[in-house]
Amino acid sequence: MTDHRFVLTFRAPDRPGILAAIAPLLAEQGCDIREAEVYGDADTATFFSRIAIASPVVLDTLGTAIAPVATELGLDWGLHDLAKRMRVLIAVSKFGHCLVDLIHKTEIGQLPIDIVGVVSNHEAMQQTVEWHGLPFHYLPMTGGKAAQEATFAGLIDEADADLTVLARYMQILSDDFSAGLQGRCINIHHSFLPSFKGAKPYHQAHARGVKIIGATAHYVTPDLDEGPIIEQDVRRVTHAVTADEMVAIGREVEASVLSRAVRWHAEHRVFMNGNKTVVLG
Amino acid sequence: MTDHRFVLTFRAPDRPGILAAIAPLLAEQGCDIREAEVYGDADTATFFSRIAIASPVVLDTLGTAIAPVATELGLDWGLHDLAKRMRVLIAVSKFGHCLVDLIHKTEIGQLPIDIVGVVSNHEAMQQTVEWHGLPFHYLPMTGGKAAQEATFAGLIDEADADLTVLARYMQILSDDFSAGLQGRCINIHHSFLPSFKGAKPYHQAHARGVKIIGATAHYVTPDLDEGPIIEQDVRRVTHAVTADEMVAIGREVEASVLSRAVRWHAEHRVFMNGNKTVVLG
Amino acid sequence: MTDHRFVLTFRAPDRPGILAAIAPLLAEQGCDIREAEVYGDADTATFFSRIAIASPVVLDTLGTAIAPVATELGLDWGLHDLAKRMRVLIAVSKFGHCLVDLIHKTEIGQLPIDIVGVVSNHEAMQQTVEWHGLPFHYLPMTGGKAAQEATFAGLIDEADADLTVLARYMQILSDDFSAGLQGRCINIHHSFLPSFKGAKPYHQAHARGVKIIGATAHYVTPDLDEGPIIEQDVRRVTHAVTADEMVAIGREVEASVLSRAVRWHAEHRVFMNGNKTVVLG
Amino acid sequence: MTDHRFVLTFRAPDRPGILAAIAPLLAEQGCDIREAEVYGDADTATFFSRIAIASPVVLDTLGTAIAPVATELGLDWGLHDLAKRMRVLIAVSKFGHCLVDLIHKTEIGQLPIDIVGVVSNHEAMQQTVEWHGLPFHYLPMTGGKAAQEATFAGLIDEADADLTVLARYMQILSDDFSAGLQGRCINIHHSFLPSFKGAKPYHQAHARGVKIIGATAHYVTPDLDEGPIIEQDVRRVTHAVTADEMVAIGREVEASVLSRAVRWHAEHRVFMNGNKTVVLG
Repeated sequence: MTDHRFVLTFRAPDRPGILAAIAPLLAEQGCDIREAEVYGDADTATFFSRIAIASPVVLDTLGTAIAPVATELGLDWGLHDLAKRMRVLIAVSKFGHCLVDLIHKTEIGQLPIDIVGVVSNHEAMQQTVEWHGLPFHYLPMTGGKAAQEATFAGLIDEADADLTVLARYMQILSDDFSAGLQGRCINIHHSFLPSFKGAKPYHQAHARGVKIIGATAHYVTPDLDEGPIIEQDVRRVTHAVTADEMVAIGREVEASVLSRAVRWHAEHRVFMNGNKTVVLG
Repeated sequence: MTDHRFVLTFRAPDRPGILAAIAPLLAEQGCDIREAEVYGDADTATFFSRIAIASPVVLDTLGTAIAPVATELGLDWGLHDLAKRMRVLIAVSKFGHCLVDLIHKTEIGQLPIDIVGVVSNHEAMQQTVEWHGLPFHYLPMTGGKAAQEATFAGLIDEADADLTVLARYMQILSDDFSAGLQGRCINIHHSFLPSFKGAKPYHQAHARGVKIIGATAHYVTPDLDEGPIIEQDVRRVTHAVTADEMVAIGREVEASVLSRAVRWHAEHRVFMNGNKTVVLG
Repeated sequence: MTDHRFVLTFRAPDRPGILAAIAPLLAEQGCDIREAEVYGDADTATFFSRIAIASPVVLDTLGTAIAPVATELGLDWGLHDLAKRMRVLIAVSKFGHCLVDLIHKTEIGQLPIDIVGVVSNHEAMQQTVEWHGLPFHYLPMTGGKAAQEATFAGLIDEADADLTVLARYMQILSDDFSAGLQGRCINIHHSFLPSFKGAKPYHQAHARGVKIIGATAHYVTPDLDEGPIIEQDVRRVTHAVTADEMVAIGREVEASVLSRAVRWHAEHRVFMNGNKTVVLG
Repeated sequence: MTDHRFVLTFRAPDRPGILAAIAPLLAEQGCDIREAEVYGDADTATFFSRIAIASPVVLDTLGTAIAPVATELGLDWGLHDLAKRMRVLIAVSKFGHCLVDLIHKTEIGQLPIDIVGVVSNHEAMQQTVEWHGLPFHYLPMTGGKAAQEATFAGLIDEADADLTVLARYMQILSDDFSAGLQGRCINIHHSFLPSFKGAKPYHQAHARGVKIIGATAHYVTPDLDEGPIIEQDVRRVTHAVTADEMVAIGREVEASVLSRAVRWHAEHRVFMNGNKTVVLG
């Protein structure tokens, strides 16, 4: 008997009986619940759940069993095979620390993703990317933003990417492009949002004299730096730390925060909830 | 229709179908699941769960419905009314920072407990405790440890205390007394265990030259400083911080860690799992 | 030979030779340097220094020796006797957690200050304050802000307070009052500034969905929530933490951050540097 | 006029007048003090200082001026040119996360070192190292420990390495080899020392059920895992984190802690003080 590892995620308008319908259904299929977390959000009257399952039946069989019940309950749901790694396209500009970190963590098996390629508006990272055996797509802005984004969008489609990660990609996506990627594009912003939106956040932080700096991973939306926050982290600084040194200190936090957000997304833990996220498990 | 807030906790030898049996049972009684977390511990093949419920029926009714199913499934379970605050007896010696913090947080409604009294082998905290309107029991060691512990144990019974908190109580409990309180006695140790067990941990930390100090809240067991850890936290120090200054810095961490452990215990989030804990939700 | 513990602080326009002039002068008086930190701020071309001294001569003698050299070098300087505790007036409204923490830490010798009284626009804290043997001044806003502030200012003068601490004092000081207290009034703001200025910051934080909340201690200036930041700290939160729970979690951080800022100020470690601070040693 | 950036470090038996002798001497040479920190350690009656200088004269000139005064005062001193990067030899076994991090931070200018080569008892990292243009020395243990260490020691000499970094090098150095490298060899231990010395610390941490794990960078001494601690850091874990996941979480902390320790050492900030360190500035 093969043991498949699946994750069932769902959200629904809050009402009693959802778990009472789902749990027996899983048991009937012989599934064993390994982890489960349920969160009822009072503000939006929405019920969120993530259930990790060891299943003796294949994904299609289980999905077919779940479908009619899910429809009846009004669930927005997904059933994911953990053996099938998420396909990720990374975009980068000149600074490679997040890219290098994502590649290294993927190579050593710490991130359950397949990096299907790297897009950049600069050539700086080409050698690094290609040495790791990954396709590098040089997409300069010389032909204008619209053309560049059309090519970028085409690459996402061709690569069949489940997720696009802006790993210090210093171009602002157009509203249309952002909107089309909603829920499947993660950006790292190099400040502790909502402090220091926009350009040169470490220099803003230095000018303000804060004692702690940070980084924020969020889903990309048309509202720049306003997307749902997935993860944040911080580091202490002192008066003696220059803006340039903040840039250096911040690199580690950016890479750490971004890789956690990508991992949680790839493990189907993150739910968008309006302008916020719910992170389960 | 009154909405009761209950917490159902259970553990069981790991097997499929537990949630499939429990969830429909709750639904049949009209209960709404507000939070749920399930954790299957692979090392011990044990299934742990905490479910927060809004219930239209009273505790006895729900308990009666659960009992036969729980017996059939082999659950070690409890059903707790969140409106019934846990009764807590605090033990302290001369240093009052954890005690003062627990009293203040209880008074302002941040800790869901009733402090039913304070036991001490010193008189230092008597005035403070009585000013807050709490019974103070002076239990000196003058008559010997056995007699003192017998009185202490009697007070726990008389006060009908659900939990005893050793809030910098500088006496080592005897094996028998410890064993009798297993799972319902929390101690704060002023180091980041397992580093610096025993006496004067900040002086040990200073002598070793660590760069981070901490505190640990754990269940009391006959093995001193070896009980299941509930919570830990840390603070940075430098070479310039003396042992006495570590004592001062550590007070905040101790109070913070202890109050979190007490809150989680009072909210029925903490499960003992051999020499470890599982903290849900 | 008595050993006096002094702190010499100074700032000056940056130029070579300052320490070369000061250090021999201290040696001539038989002083032993125990700690010293020097920071040359490149942005403002200002030199800051704090020197902790063990001195065989009394303060006046040492001060008389320093004065002419300091004048020649253009130093803005102070010589402080660590045996003379700073006089602190605390202002509070209804929430007592920072007040209780400051009083407790002062009583156990952790804060080198004398609390000379507590001012409040509410009576909520009166009993607590008086039980600790401290003068409580009830200053309601009923007669208007101008009159209330005049009384407040009078109390600062009468109490000969070196420092005024706004320990969750929920009144905005007028520009004139703020300006008059510049550099000797510390406020705790219950957010990680510059995020969430103004009212109800935890509710703002909850609405934005941040994963980390914080608190900020800063000098009061006429620009609300824009004064020089002395210290900040943070705590993790999740999607499941309500705004009210953030309020509860935040109390500890507020008390911790505020007491550190007060201690550093009382130990003459904090220098205002435009809209920023330099914190030495 | 060229501005040289030097760092003067010294330690001495504690006595008054040291800074009074040194500061004027620096001023006479036209030097400008940019940063200075002085720490008098009461336990060992030792005075430590690090002074960062902008100097118009070359290193030899300044050193010649300092030497006689230093001798008279009994200083153990050094004068270091910040333009001369420290030469670092890295040792690694199979796990490359610390190595990759050190190389990346060096390449982007975040670490002021020259990596002069990489030594390994495995071939796993050879391709990575060579792709970055660095010499890789494969030193298997097949010929016995003594022979391997002799070759290793020879490489340190040939490379004229100022510092050897054990970046997850899973061989225990012999007492003689350790002793010979004292003060110029840094190891990363994958636990929060003194907890979990020896092998498989994450597995020890998992077995004990700690809620926080960490990493420690320390100078290597013949006493395994007992050398002076330079830096430590931690991450939170829960009951649900397996030992293998702790290994993964810990990688980031290890790399971060090690790179900070290496940077501080390379900037001449770290002093050994018996079994402890003093880290200035």
